[in-house]
Amino acid sequence: MNFITTPVKGMSDILPADMKLREHVLRLIRDTYATYGFEEIATPSMEHIENLSGRIGGENEKLIFRVLKRGRELEKGLETGELSDCGMRYDLTVPLARYYSNLKNQLPTPLKALQIGNVWRADKPQKGRFRQFTQCDIDIIGDSSVMAEIELIAATCGMLTRIFGEVGVTDFTVHINDRRILKAMAQGAGFAPEQFDDVFIALDKMDKIGPEGVRESLLKSGCEEAAADSYLAMFDGFVSGESAGDFCGRVCEGELLADVPAQIDLIMNSAAGMTAPGVHLLFDPTLVRGMSYYTGTIFEITIDGYNFSIAGGGRYDEMIGRFSGQQAPACGFSIGFERIVTILKDLDWKDPEAGREKIAYLVDEKAGSEKIMEVFARASRDREEGAVVSVQPLRKNAKFQVESLEKNGYGRVRKVYADTEL
Amino acid sequence: MNFITTPVKGMSDILPADMKLREHVLRLIRDTYATYGFEEIATPSMEHIENLSGRIGGENEKLIFRVLKRGRELEKGLETGELSDCGMRYDLTVPLARYYSNLKNQLPTPLKALQIGNVWRADKPQKGRFRQFTQCDIDIIGDSSVMAEIELIAATCGMLTRIFGEVGVTDFTVHINDRRILKAMAQGAGFAPEQFDDVFIALDKMDKIGPEGVRESLLKSGCEEAAADSYLAMFDGFVSGESAGDFCGRVCEGELLADVPAQIDLIMNSAAGMTAPGVHLLFDPTLVRGMSYYTGTIFEITIDGYNFSIAGGGRYDEMIGRFSGQQAPACGFSIGFERIVTILKDLDWKDPEAGREKIAYLVDEKAGSEKIMEVFARASRDREEGAVVSVQPLRKNAKFQVESLEKNGYGRVRKVYADTEL
Repeated sequence: MNFITTPVKGMSDILPADMKLREHVLRLIRDTYATYGFEEIATPSMEHIENLSGRIGGENEKLIFRVLKRGRELEKGLETGELSDCGMRYDLTVPLARYYSNLKNQLPTPLKALQIGNVWRADKPQKGRFRQFTQCDIDIIGDSSVMAEIELIAATCGMLTRIFGEVGVTDFTVHINDRRILKAMAQGAGFAPEQFDDVFIALDKMDKIGPEGVRESLLKSGCEEAAADSYLAMFDGFVSGESAGDFCGRVCEGELLADVPAQIDLIMNSAAGMTAPGVHLLFDPTLVRGMSYYTGTIFEITIDGYNFSIAGGGRYDEMIGRFSGQQAPACGFSIGFERIVTILKDLDWKDPEAGREKIAYLVDEKAGSEKIMEVFARASRDREEGAVVSVQPLRKNAKFQVESLEKNGYGRVRKVYADTEL
Repeated sequence: MNFITTPVKGMSDILPADMKLREHVLRLIRDTYATYGFEEIATPSMEHIENLSGRIGGENEKLIFRVLKRGRELEKGLETGELSDCGMRYDLTVPLARYYSNLKNQLPTPLKALQIGNVWRADKPQKGRFRQFTQCDIDIIGDSSVMAEIELIAATCGMLTRIFGEVGVTDFTVHINDRRILKAMAQGAGFAPEQFDDVFIALDKMDKIGPEGVRESLLKSGCEEAAADSYLAMFDGFVSGESAGDFCGRVCEGELLADVPAQIDLIMNSAAGMTAPGVHLLFDPTLVRGMSYYTGTIFEITIDGYNFSIAGGGRYDEMIGRFSGQQAPACGFSIGFERIVTILKDLDWKDPEAGREKIAYLVDEKAGSEKIMEVFARASRDREEGAVVSVQPLRKNAKFQVESLEKNGYGRVRKVYADTEL
């Protein structure tokens, strides 16, 4: 026998203290979204290979862990399709689209769904990248109005305020933009529709490389100088805090956008009334978001002081239709669960349950049956009174045992011998 | 594009109502075991193929879903080992043994672990058998005393009493036996050690086929008639409720068993003092349990009136050593989570959270921005007062929308138009 004690490469064993944090965060996520009428759903970890390869997953489609068919030996000479017809999901969006198409007759409209689960990516192992990690998505399917965006932003900010309040972090920024504004601006600057993807990839780097860098990147991808200059000039006068209505009024042709800027203003004004004072809502015309399936509003939330997003999402009105053949508007958030957990750990999160009384009875091996029964009866009463109680044998190295229990929050550690009065 | 809307064969999409039940049960499981000092851990869903094929998993080793290596195309002519070096876990026991061996220097002794997670089995799809399902294991590693058994039984009965109390079910039976008694009896009857496995397989069917059936089965597997008769005679005088001490005193040679019967009596007497009145603890010399890794006590819990177990386990003192090269005593329970959920559903479980006020605001599309903002401000106040609130557009088929919300527990459903006073 040749057992391997380390986990499979890129995947993690989770220690009790880390699980406590993770479960605590998951409970706050569940409880908060429930208050907003979201209901939890679940999908299997494996998905048909056809669904995983349908161009919804972007770059993640290159990272599929394929699963071999039941009973299929790896005989030489077999084709891929004969060996494997499913793989591990790399996100929760593809399964959600399939789920909704499968069960829509049994689901309410709109469906307000919370989905929490592991996803798997055959990524190159590196710091902060895992091959299995937990994702947490919230989506509203069947609501084409901005009410979906408002509920999603308000609930997500409520959740973040609650979770990070425990480590004293209260300031978040919600960056909001709209794919239609991105497109109208690119069109207004003179780019051709087939150049839009390159333009957005360049714009996405604005906060890192600045306008000069974006210009260079545009020219490198073959855009005309005039278009690049006219595009960058649009962002010139933008000041953080300017409303979508004001900005678009200045830089875009009105008829292209119809009521898009007004919708963003409404989303921001409504959400502002529902979120804590530390939550800042900003229209951000440089926000791009990678996934090509977004059709309207896009958003991203950052913790002030950290320059990466901890939640992001947008409206994707055309994806469900590709599954079910029947269009359904949809809008959703992906929450960076692993990032949130990492930040909380860095900020020295303390278990709020740690205040609970914890008692350990360490029973000497010669204590005898009568005493053991007495200890357990006592433990039972302590538990009824609300304490966490652990009964265990007194080890030879009792000093170390007591210390490690105390470190784990056991405020009362009692050694029990045959003659101990309980 | 060719999307498939049904889930992968043998796996399930879970509807919101079912998730509510599942999450509720998981929360009670977590909360109850926490009170007994158990801490949650987690292991990856994938495991090295060497660990999955190490003869710990019994029949499940035939049901491994193998996963292809990253980036490995299914080129013709490759050997199995070149294509795949890991698979989906089929239980939580193998990963636990690996986990403990990997992290033992960072874990307390004894470790009291709760592990909840999905497992995968490439089983033939049939009613009640799934290819992905949730398991829930609790284990104590590093405690060779009966205190481990007592804590496990008391905590598990506490959990069951709490969960099933919600549907009015209060009566459970804990069946207890010991591998060492099984062996001593087989030896006493005159079977050779290499026959023991066949003997236990036959005995395991006692409750279904009776003593005559067991006798037939023994003879069929090649046992001598004299041994079979002498073996069955041992069970003859057994009356449910007899203590292990009394029974073994009658039928086994004393020196073979040392204090095993006394240990079982102590486990039962201690656990009796900690469990609810509906919990019956019975020594059951016919209890076998399948897994070959058990070394001592074995137990199984049934709900009175249902003739299958909803939790089972035992002591396996030699498994960890096979992983780490360093022996560590261990004892654990596997909880039949899926069965528990199925029974609760059959018994018409009602969400205890259903009493919470649920309000829906259905906003007419012509209500206007001002009114929308007013609705959300109102929703925010309702939520602060503890209600679940959902804001959504008023659909054309409003009657159906209202009805389905009411069915989902929304006691107040308000339609909001431009002139509605909130």
